[in-house]
Amino acid sequence: MSEIAELGEFGLIRHLTEDIELKNESSRKGVGDDCAVLAPQAGMHTLVTTDMLMEGVHFDLTYVPMHYLGYKAVIENLSDIYAMNGRPRQITVSLALSKRFSVEDIDQLYTGMRQACEEHGVDIVGGDTTSSLTGLAISITAIGEARPEDIVYRNGAKDTDLICVSGNLGAAYMGLQLLEREKMVYNQQLAAAQRSGNKREMEYLNTMQPDFAGREYILQRQLKPQARRDIVEALAQAGIHPTSMMDISDGLSSELLHICTQSHTGCRIYEERLPLDYQTAAMAEELNMNVTTCALNGGEDYELLFTVPLSDNERIQQIEDVHLIGYITKEELGHALICRDGVEMELKAQGWNPLKKD
Amino acid sequence: MSEIAELGEFGLIRHLTEDIELKNESSRKGVGDDCAVLAPQAGMHTLVTTDMLMEGVHFDLTYVPMHYLGYKAVIENLSDIYAMNGRPRQITVSLALSKRFSVEDIDQLYTGMRQACEEHGVDIVGGDTTSSLTGLAISITAIGEARPEDIVYRNGAKDTDLICVSGNLGAAYMGLQLLEREKMVYNQQLAAAQRSGNKREMEYLNTMQPDFAGREYILQRQLKPQARRDIVEALAQAGIHPTSMMDISDGLSSELLHICTQSHTGCRIYEERLPLDYQTAAMAEELNMNVTTCALNGGEDYELLFTVPLSDNERIQQIEDVHLIGYITKEELGHALICRDGVEMELKAQGWNPLKKD
Repeated sequence: MSEIAELGEFGLIRHLTEDIELKNESSRKGVGDDCAVLAPQAGMHTLVTTDMLMEGVHFDLTYVPMHYLGYKAVIENLSDIYAMNGRPRQITVSLALSKRFSVEDIDQLYTGMRQACEEHGVDIVGGDTTSSLTGLAISITAIGEARPEDIVYRNGAKDTDLICVSGNLGAAYMGLQLLEREKMVYNQQLAAAQRSGNKREMEYLNTMQPDFAGREYILQRQLKPQARRDIVEALAQAGIHPTSMMDISDGLSSELLHICTQSHTGCRIYEERLPLDYQTAAMAEELNMNVTTCALNGGEDYELLFTVPLSDNERIQQIEDVHLIGYITKEELGHALICRDGVEMELKAQGWNPLKKD
Repeated sequence: MSEIAELGEFGLIRHLTEDIELKNESSRKGVGDDCAVLAPQAGMHTLVTTDMLMEGVHFDLTYVPMHYLGYKAVIENLSDIYAMNGRPRQITVSLALSKRFSVEDIDQLYTGMRQACEEHGVDIVGGDTTSSLTGLAISITAIGEARPEDIVYRNGAKDTDLICVSGNLGAAYMGLQLLEREKMVYNQQLAAAQRSGNKREMEYLNTMQPDFAGREYILQRQLKPQARRDIVEALAQAGIHPTSMMDISDGLSSELLHICTQSHTGCRIYEERLPLDYQTAAMAEELNMNVTTCALNGGEDYELLFTVPLSDNERIQQIEDVHLIGYITKEELGHALICRDGVEMELKAQGWNPLKKD
């Protein structure tokens, strides 16, 4: 393993970025000066979003491989660009690293980041690399573009609009639960082996891989989520302009309430319409959790939540992997979840809150 | 003191940003959606820079007040935009906070950030606010604009160009040394009082303020540095287009070597020409440090280092607070510092490296 200190800041940046080729016409100057230089296309608006990920809060390196972490960190930001109906073009990457990380670790992280960038035609044009006293911090800023008339905000939903979500919900959250459970079991077994001084058992535990057969999908949703460019492109191709849109990072309930608050509307969504994968349901059952709660409040789906005028009903149903889950109402009608048994409940935001009280 | 957990992520963001008014024509949508939306002026290029600051590595909250920290964090990024000969327009601010910070702390931090933004006509258009297990992390991305033909890179310096710096050098570094010394003295006195159980002394130490009379300038340079918009404007007004430029954040030597490397040139600079403030020299003397070393390698000056064609010699000397320190040479002549006694030394980068080995 190579120590980062041997390379120093500039050496590490050179090592990580020297073979980056800029692919976008708008990326005029990447890493290597005081700023990156971009040439926006005439008439286009620029979209900017940024996310900060802290070790121990947003990710747990005991079960998240570095290249998945890098991939996901980029995808989360690109997802925000798609959620405005834009196209991502550039990112900057800032890393703060404690001494326990090697050059190889950071290479892995960058491999994942570059894979995500390549899949989405995005250039890494800058960043900052520094040290931290504890753990890893990742801050990514993504820059995209869109024609002004194409941009979709959160505040345009109208009474009678249809509420749509892409893909399915709650799977990433179930993947997280599975990983957390395996970690706990492993730690208990290891502690027991250590207490009894059973070296053979300790060695066995060190090499053991948990059996995730049949759960690959929920793990993948947690570790390697996708940003739904395909949906944004399908909507454009179908000539559908959503009235509001955002990506689901903190759970459907929380996001739908953002749209309703900003659009001054109510909503009615139907439990039976919430798209679920079989593995999500099976895992919830096994963990004795309510799968609807998981679908409503589990975060990190990175699916798109959007509204379209009622007149787009037929066209929207032609688009693969888009699901109608309800409709927008007048504000005074509130935010309702209609359960399978017909009971009406108030929708509440119980999504993930990184600043919540313990 | 108010706990951040009581507000939660969205509450804190609302609290910090609800009264922000966007002032730039190009800032179309700020905080509150998946992305900020900017409308670049036709024909302008976009400049992007980002910095990550970690508690314990880049700042020490035992002597840095939160509002100064906020101010400086913004200034560092704006300085990078000016260093491209651009004008800053927007920033995004990401914060990761441990539980020891109160809402009032973050208000102070934001007060400093907003002051810097107001002074430079910059809008806060987005960001991310989250928690950290330990300490404070700040990641800022600044966005600026420039006409393509006005942008100044690091790689344009030519043989015989004059090397110029604004302001003076080493003062911020001397300010840091002073603060570090006072902290050490205070900690020693406190430890002694604790050992002897002298409560009165401990109380006295708690209220005591060190006497910084006569050192205000170097403290200000460390705590509240300025980004040199005035120099960029003066150059434009004088019709001077630098052939290369960057800001001095890691020390003059390190930055000048970046320019020479990227421009494939050598340089000759003169010790007697290095601009120094009286307080910098006095503090170096008191600490038994070589003031030239401080001027060459002390970081955080945020002055501009640039080169201009020899034909601009007279015009550049008309600009206030710009100093000629030497000239660019052919690459094979190397990087020389001519000392006061006429001895020639090789210029080496010994600036601050956050990833260096202990």
